[in-house]
Amino acid sequence: MIDEKLNQFIKEQQLQIDKELVKGIQQLQIPMSLSESMIYSLEAGGKRIRPMLIQAVLNDFGQTHPDAITVGTAVEMIHTYSLIHDDLPSMDNDDFRRGKPTNHKVYGEAVAILAGDALLTYSFGVLARMESVEADSKIRLISLLSETAGAEGMVGGQVMDLEGESKQLSLSELEQVHIHKTGALMRFSIEAGAILAGLSRSETAILRNFAYHVGLAFQIQDDILDITGTTEQLGKTAGKDIVSEKSTYPALLTLSGAKEKLAMHHAEAISALESLPLKDDMLRRFADYIVSRVN
Amino acid sequence: MIDEKLNQFIKEQQLQIDKELVKGIQQLQIPMSLSESMIYSLEAGGKRIRPMLIQAVLNDFGQTHPDAITVGTAVEMIHTYSLIHDDLPSMDNDDFRRGKPTNHKVYGEAVAILAGDALLTYSFGVLARMESVEADSKIRLISLLSETAGAEGMVGGQVMDLEGESKQLSLSELEQVHIHKTGALMRFSIEAGAILAGLSRSETAILRNFAYHVGLAFQIQDDILDITGTTEQLGKTAGKDIVSEKSTYPALLTLSGAKEKLAMHHAEAISALESLPLKDDMLRRFADYIVSRVN
Repeated sequence: MIDEKLNQFIKEQQLQIDKELVKGIQQLQIPMSLSESMIYSLEAGGKRIRPMLIQAVLNDFGQTHPDAITVGTAVEMIHTYSLIHDDLPSMDNDDFRRGKPTNHKVYGEAVAILAGDALLTYSFGVLARMESVEADSKIRLISLLSETAGAEGMVGGQVMDLEGESKQLSLSELEQVHIHKTGALMRFSIEAGAILAGLSRSETAILRNFAYHVGLAFQIQDDILDITGTTEQLGKTAGKDIVSEKSTYPALLTLSGAKEKLAMHHAEAISALESLPLKDDMLRRFADYIVSRVN
Repeated sequence: MIDEKLNQFIKEQQLQIDKELVKGIQQLQIPMSLSESMIYSLEAGGKRIRPMLIQAVLNDFGQTHPDAITVGTAVEMIHTYSLIHDDLPSMDNDDFRRGKPTNHKVYGEAVAILAGDALLTYSFGVLARMESVEADSKIRLISLLSETAGAEGMVGGQVMDLEGESKQLSLSELEQVHIHKTGALMRFSIEAGAILAGLSRSETAILRNFAYHVGLAFQIQDDILDITGTTEQLGKTAGKDIVSEKSTYPALLTLSGAKEKLAMHHAEAISALESLPLKDDMLRRFADYIVSRVN
């Protein structure tokens, strides 16, 4: 379950991000179909976890930053482009996402691919044009986004995931998929928060460790919920992983083994936070939420 | 025809670029199929016109820059990703490019899309990690690449091109397609050269004007060659545009009208150069080559 303080924090961020996300795109002089396709997927929603994590780092160090939202829009554009491309017929071939037709079902495959390319390309311009971040920090953010979103990060994880579908993965292979496919952008968000907050190298390294454990915990809980959750709770068909014989933590470790692993990553994440001079507890609340969430 | 001095210049750049292009990718810890797919298309060749233009600007202002090649690899990665995505079944559906099977024919559509995404993402990291460019200039280059390669530039042009296939374009619509689809990355290269050379705003504006005319001249000559060239000279089927009823300059202006337009853009490009304090004539030779080339 999500506690009230975290829920409030997430909702406040969501409102700002949702507004900022489409504002820049709407002002571009670009073909209407491209603009509509980009905005369609940006508006398709979601919790905006990645932008929220940037703010949570700043918040817990007692800071705010005028461009935290801007960096949030950049990472959310990357996340959105990755969903558009993942849903394509040659990838996961999904017709619906969060109850709405996927981008290519509405705009056709060609425009969907190009809308993804455009969001990806635009996100780097968003970082380059920020007004309240020095050039050196912008460069660090751009380099970090390129690394975590690209071949060494999210895109590489998507390739591993595709190639893993046809075989039984080992536990370490499964971890590699998740560290790259979903963990990398969470790592970007948390490290981006550290850059904006001007944290030291050692503080940043601790937060990177926090991101690692939180990212894996997130995925393990996803796998567990597929077994223990109901279709109603999840908002998607429960038990899908078992039917498709997907490599998951419960499949490799049994359900109780997966729960142990989840508890271990949660404990490591909390322990990382305890070694930091934090002024608030939003990151801790986020880690707790990940293991207690029911959807 | 290409003159000997320009030919020599192009060949020297090609050697360096070809080597640098794959070096970075080979060092990445990424799935083998992704790495092979990226390198396959990077090695598929081409004249490397875009990197060469960066060097030509520096050369003509009597300068060299240790990171000119680096910026060249970034723009060539963008060009390469755009070819991979353009060739996809849902786009131009091409099975061959320069006599070799296209990326998706070798690696499958999913990996081809992801290899394109990875090259696009990587190119921004290449710019961010340059060693001999100050942070402020890097930011200008990254912002310029995002603008010229994205929705307002190349990607937008690709959408216009796709949407134009099913209708007769006006001359100004046709120009908009080319300014965006092929002109934008040439503009990036020439302005990137100006940034690396530390040119003034007014000199950069003149070069931007040169890029505009050279980009359009390049495309008009392409359309003319489809009519006047032989299949043997072109290395691709001559007369294809007429068969497919494509909107082209000769179709809209007649062949002699298109040649007049070509001569006009050539003259404007040369005139732009004449107002600059140049120490060499590689840009002029490039403009001459564009209108006299036979393939």
